[in-house]
Amino acid sequence: MAKEKKLVEAITSMEEDFAQWYTDVVKKAELMDYSSVRGCMIFKPAGYAIWENIQKELDRRFKETGVENVYMPLFIPESLLEKEKDHVEGFAPEVAWVTQGGLNELPERLCVRPTSETLFCDFYKNIVHSYRDLPKVYNQWCSVVRWEKETRPFLRSREFLWQEGHTAHATAEEAKERTIQMLNLYADFCEQVLAIPVIRGQKTEKEKFAGAEATYTIEALMHDGKALQSGTSHNFGDGFAKAFGIQYTDKDNTLKYVHQTSWGMTTRLIGALIMVHGDNDGLVLPPHIAPVQAMVIPIQQHREGVLDKAEEVRERLGKVCRAKLDDSDKSPGWKFSEQEMRGIPVRVELGPKDIEAGKCVVVRRDTREKIEVALDELEVKVPEILETIQKDMYERAKKHRDAHIWDAHNYDEFKDIAENKPGFIRGMWCEDRACEDKIKEELAVTSRCMPFEDQEQISDVCVCCGKPAHKLVYWGKAY
Amino acid sequence: MAKEKKLVEAITSMEEDFAQWYTDVVKKAELMDYSSVRGCMIFKPAGYAIWENIQKELDRRFKETGVENVYMPLFIPESLLEKEKDHVEGFAPEVAWVTQGGLNELPERLCVRPTSETLFCDFYKNIVHSYRDLPKVYNQWCSVVRWEKETRPFLRSREFLWQEGHTAHATAEEAKERTIQMLNLYADFCEQVLAIPVIRGQKTEKEKFAGAEATYTIEALMHDGKALQSGTSHNFGDGFAKAFGIQYTDKDNTLKYVHQTSWGMTTRLIGALIMVHGDNDGLVLPPHIAPVQAMVIPIQQHREGVLDKAEEVRERLGKVCRAKLDDSDKSPGWKFSEQEMRGIPVRVELGPKDIEAGKCVVVRRDTREKIEVALDELEVKVPEILETIQKDMYERAKKHRDAHIWDAHNYDEFKDIAENKPGFIRGMWCEDRACEDKIKEELAVTSRCMPFEDQEQISDVCVCCGKPAHKLVYWGKAY
Ligand SMILES: [Zn+2]
Ligand SMILES: [Zn+2]
Repeated sequence: MAKEKKLVEAITSMEEDFAQWYTDVVKKAELMDYSSVRGCMIFKPAGYAIWENIQKELDRRFKETGVENVYMPLFIPESLLEKEKDHVEGFAPEVAWVTQGGLNELPERLCVRPTSETLFCDFYKNIVHSYRDLPKVYNQWCSVVRWEKETRPFLRSREFLWQEGHTAHATAEEAKERTIQMLNLYADFCEQVLAIPVIRGQKTEKEKFAGAEATYTIEALMHDGKALQSGTSHNFGDGFAKAFGIQYTDKDNTLKYVHQTSWGMTTRLIGALIMVHGDNDGLVLPPHIAPVQAMVIPIQQHREGVLDKAEEVRERLGKVCRAKLDDSDKSPGWKFSEQEMRGIPVRVELGPKDIEAGKCVVVRRDTREKIEVALDELEVKVPEILETIQKDMYERAKKHRDAHIWDAHNYDEFKDIAENKPGFIRGMWCEDRACEDKIKEELAVTSRCMPFEDQEQISDVCVCCGKPAHKLVYWGKAY
Repeated sequence: MAKEKKLVEAITSMEEDFAQWYTDVVKKAELMDYSSVRGCMIFKPAGYAIWENIQKELDRRFKETGVENVYMPLFIPESLLEKEKDHVEGFAPEVAWVTQGGLNELPERLCVRPTSETLFCDFYKNIVHSYRDLPKVYNQWCSVVRWEKETRPFLRSREFLWQEGHTAHATAEEAKERTIQMLNLYADFCEQVLAIPVIRGQKTEKEKFAGAEATYTIEALMHDGKALQSGTSHNFGDGFAKAFGIQYTDKDNTLKYVHQTSWGMTTRLIGALIMVHGDNDGLVLPPHIAPVQAMVIPIQQHREGVLDKAEEVRERLGKVCRAKLDDSDKSPGWKFSEQEMRGIPVRVELGPKDIEAGKCVVVRRDTREKIEVALDELEVKVPEILETIQKDMYERAKKHRDAHIWDAHNYDEFKDIAENKPGFIRGMWCEDRACEDKIKEELAVTSRCMPFEDQEQISDVCVCCGKPAHKLVYWGKAY
């Protein structure tokens, strides 16, 4: 048994050191690897396969709302990046610059896109002329680069993968609607597919996107009580349109500026999956996103007929879910801990005695529950079990999240919670940036959002300065 | 009718000016647009949708052969690029260099990947230790950058999209097998999906990939008689493994170098689709790759019941193919020429009289043939017509290709063909690079490949120098 335990023992427990536990899971579940380029990661097959599933499902949902995919250049000329003042201030300090092409110095520096608002604006300026050309609802899947100083697998790296949607509309109302529509799409995706409950809300002025009129966000709570911004949707109003001169002739024959939005989700969602669902045996993937949903593991596979039966089971399961067979020459115990480490939602154990009895044992990754399933009920029972796991994982994450929301009525309470109780802090805010700055500086806590659904007035005064306050804010330490 | 003709009249005819015809189609079919970055393109929805279908189908075929997808960093440190001598010589003159990250000069220049052999080698060096770790059969979908001086939509641009497969194997035989397997996969894909016949063969030493032991290629013939290299597969032997030190412990407990391959296909395939199948009314897409396969166009759509019926037809067709309805307020004639320009394989015309007669008219894009189809046979007939178009398009392209293969037995014949007869030239070669160089310099003709299937000895002497020759080479002017 010594060998079988190795895989598991190599992981730091999350209670002991959450950050180290996270890194261990990332490595041992073979999700990513470091590269020779500092701060840039390699997505290994198990990690990239999760991203492929995220892409497939998000892309399907996008297209149902009329989104069309395009691909824009990787480079942005410096002069183009500079056109919108707030935007360039926000991004210029953290971009990578190409200064040489082939053997020649470039006449103008090009930055590697940190985001593509400026490119889309330049594009829309050329293709939008009449109200008939609107709306434009484009999206691209690509990588972006931000020259971060400190990096962390999936959560913060110098290059990451994402999708960025960019839309142009005739009216302010339509832009606002699209912004909210995409935020809701993101929230539904997180909750239904990733089994991660989120809080929808608006960012404060301090925390909004560089150049946006309003930024909306979905915020999730990790197992350690830290928040993770999991998707954002920005309403630009006509700010970029004015900076770039994107105008159209309306039905009444007058020239008007378009109204724009952008919205994005990134590979940090993989980090969220790890930190919301993982445990001390490794990754736990919700069935809806798991690249492999059921791993068939034969017991005593050298015995006649076992491997054949296992392959038959895999084949039958393959018709109703994403199933694989582990017929390697490792021991069953080793295979179990590998399947657990990789977060595969169920394993299907099948040995000579099971075959004789016409059954197999389905073991849930999330609860370890062992469920005997008659072989002739495989195609019905396994999908049912997967759906139950999906539902239970969401409920468990929600219960954990809800148990880690604390109310603060004054600064002392706020400070005590920030220092001792991991989770979201509900606290009223006077809408003065100075209070946000103070809280961030003294407690390393930031305003996560002003929630849509929860607008309770838990007090009349600001949790920081004590002045009158009407806005409820969710605060938290964040990744 | 004046308005209806505009779309069509705006295209230069291909007989008059093929290059201008090509550019016109690219623009009018809305496949791409130029960006503010010289030499970089914008893939518009109609162009990107073709790439998405290419990806989906190729990726499916890859995975059937055991390929796993990964994602490697965008940047390569200069020292890493330099590790394999031939490779760096081939690529260094045409890469873009990042020299600044954020506000700081970088300690080492990073090139934006022109291809990722060096990154994969660096990765494999770290993860391959034992024969149990082999083979590694990885692929990535990404963009690459090559600082070309002259660019052309889809065919040559500073940034393009592609997939690059990179594999590591225990033996030379296995690497060779994988190289050929992927070349055959590419050829099947081109012929079955893109309806483009290809010639499979090996590149000469002069034309092979920088750092490869052998490069295999599929070569297609465009409508103007020029060749287009449409996919390549490289066998590296253990050259890169030695340069990077990628060794594994074999079963016999000795250290051995791995053997590697790489293979790629790019967005230039979209250029091939245009130039093989297009005509003077625009793009013609083979049904297997067309994002929209059938466009339903109502006639007299203001008449009661017409739009409803058209929508019903679209819905029914949507279950058996990719169907769309054009219910915009343009005239039918305008819609016809738009559908033709965009290369949609069939349009389904449906007016009040058709509805009364319980039929519709299916018009083939490739032949203009009008086929009456009873409405209750829609789901059977339209897919049949699409399959017929697919088959016919391949046959037509093959006939055209075969009619443009010429034999040259000496330099005079070769020169005459090169100057007067567009197409492939079959000619024997002495295997001396000097002859290749001379032919390229004097006639702008290059060796396309030494074909696998066609090994006829059409003469005993080199078509250039007249010395003894045993190798049949396909020559041609190429994009
Ligand atoms: Zn305050
Ligand atoms: Zn010769």
